[in-house]
Amino acid sequence: MKYQPQDPAFEARVRASFARQTFMTTLGATLLAVEPGVVSIDLPFRTDLLQQHGFLHAAALTAVVDSACGFAALTLMPPEAAVLTIEFKVNFLAPAAGTHFRAVGRVVRAGRNICVSSGEVLSLGNGEAASNAPVIALMQATMMTVRGSGLAD
Amino acid sequence: MKYQPQDPAFEARVRASFARQTFMTTLGATLLAVEPGVVSIDLPFRTDLLQQHGFLHAAALTAVVDSACGFAALTLMPPEAAVLTIEFKVNFLAPAAGTHFRAVGRVVRAGRNICVSSGEVLSLGNGEAASNAPVIALMQATMMTVRGSGLAD
Amino acid sequence: MKYQPQDPAFEARVRASFARQTFMTTLGATLLAVEPGVVSIDLPFRTDLLQQHGFLHAAALTAVVDSACGFAALTLMPPEAAVLTIEFKVNFLAPAAGTHFRAVGRVVRAGRNICVSSGEVLSLGNGEAASNAPVIALMQATMMTVRGSGLAD
Amino acid sequence: MKYQPQDPAFEARVRASFARQTFMTTLGATLLAVEPGVVSIDLPFRTDLLQQHGFLHAAALTAVVDSACGFAALTLMPPEAAVLTIEFKVNFLAPAAGTHFRAVGRVVRAGRNICVSSGEVLSLGNGEAASNAPVIALMQATMMTVRGSGLAD
Repeated sequence: MKYQPQDPAFEARVRASFARQTFMTTLGATLLAVEPGVVSIDLPFRTDLLQQHGFLHAAALTAVVDSACGFAALTLMPPEAAVLTIEFKVNFLAPAAGTHFRAVGRVVRAGRNICVSSGEVLSLGNGEAASNAPVIALMQATMMTVRGSGLAD
Repeated sequence: MKYQPQDPAFEARVRASFARQTFMTTLGATLLAVEPGVVSIDLPFRTDLLQQHGFLHAAALTAVVDSACGFAALTLMPPEAAVLTIEFKVNFLAPAAGTHFRAVGRVVRAGRNICVSSGEVLSLGNGEAASNAPVIALMQATMMTVRGSGLAD
Repeated sequence: MKYQPQDPAFEARVRASFARQTFMTTLGATLLAVEPGVVSIDLPFRTDLLQQHGFLHAAALTAVVDSACGFAALTLMPPEAAVLTIEFKVNFLAPAAGTHFRAVGRVVRAGRNICVSSGEVLSLGNGEAASNAPVIALMQATMMTVRGSGLAD
Repeated sequence: MKYQPQDPAFEARVRASFARQTFMTTLGATLLAVEPGVVSIDLPFRTDLLQQHGFLHAAALTAVVDSACGFAALTLMPPEAAVLTIEFKVNFLAPAAGTHFRAVGRVVRAGRNICVSSGEVLSLGNGEAASNAPVIALMQATMMTVRGSGLAD
């Protein structure tokens, strides 16, 4: 779907907001593409982000796909608005093995107050194309547009 | 609800499994009570776990409540079984402000293969009793019992 | 939790709104208690509401627990507001066998715009007390307060 | 994604199973295409399936998209297996106005025991192409393969 952003400076705004998410820095996550309604974030495999079986913890994947879904929503919001996650649901489709992971969040419907995003996490190996990478987590998320709260972005 | 664990050593098993979750160490999370069907985990507020507005990132809360729900399920599983998160859904009820947070996971139904847990995150201030603390996140999660995979716990 | 309704006529309003839900009549559902933040609805087992294995269809249970959760939210809304379901998630814990079913919806958090409800469906047999009845479905739902839309209730 | 069914008679099996879902008949739902991993079901607008504001009840939409997601999973299961809904989550994106609705369920991942499906409900008007129809509900569902229970399909 093609979206027309209300804020021409949407990309700079998302990048500044991402930079303030200290949790992304802690995880070693990197912001990739920021397009109207679509945001991608990369996460490396790291031995300090694991669950008990040696795979990446479900919540580390959740962190990047939640941020991707939220920022995808923010790309379509007016300049003075902030985004909050109301709720999300994630299915984990396969163990998070791999050398790095890519979360992609896409807006499915942008309402005035409520935005629904769909997200996925791909497991990327060495030199594999993202288009062939297996989806290991699938998110459906509900975001809220918050206005006039002093929270802009 | 009262549950009878199949594994008398359930507590030691959960504590050993928690200790292997390097992501919990990275977050500074601490395992508290481990009872049949109920597990609690504490998480301090830390400035390296934030989202863009200065509150704890939704996924940091998700990490501890997912682990609490999963370990609550593990307390009721047979000794040779491991637990995997199939999926979860979380509602975020209030911004994660506070000095520390407590995640409590409780088993709602323990089936042979599928276990459903319910979790909440409380925001604890200074000296406030947990019984009065506001619930800031609510999880409903589906866990799977994995046998014979070499993943025990 | 104890809630103080904003609309003293909340019960009459919920009952009138339920009566307009023609789907409830089609299912044979009955509105029981309407209290601040809590609503119960009964559904009989009927052979025209089944899935392929002879149990009640998951969505018949969903219908009554969604309505219970939504009306529980409506009890706490101002007189001129209407309630809409933004999303819900339901776990099905056991096959829907039994002679009738009771859905109970409870408000977990009532915000100005967003209300989160928790719901369950009990399977009631002959003369069994509801307090001993097994929970066969568990819902976590997000409702929206809609003002000034001409949709009151 | 292209799937290879394990049961060459998958279509007949799904159609027979659908015919046993008496709830589908009660709703006036019709089974359309049955392909490997994809199933579509139509639902007409009817005045006995409404919520309080005159739109189709969320659970009527849920019924057809749950069945579409479940039968999509069943197309890929072995002949002796049955499908059960473990859980689903649905977002409602717009009021269910329109003359009829189409639910499409697609398998996202077919595991040995757990199958994850993604579903949507389109609002179809008079003569509008399905490819342009607005998505009014979005489901993410977890299905289980049940073997040896005497529940085949």
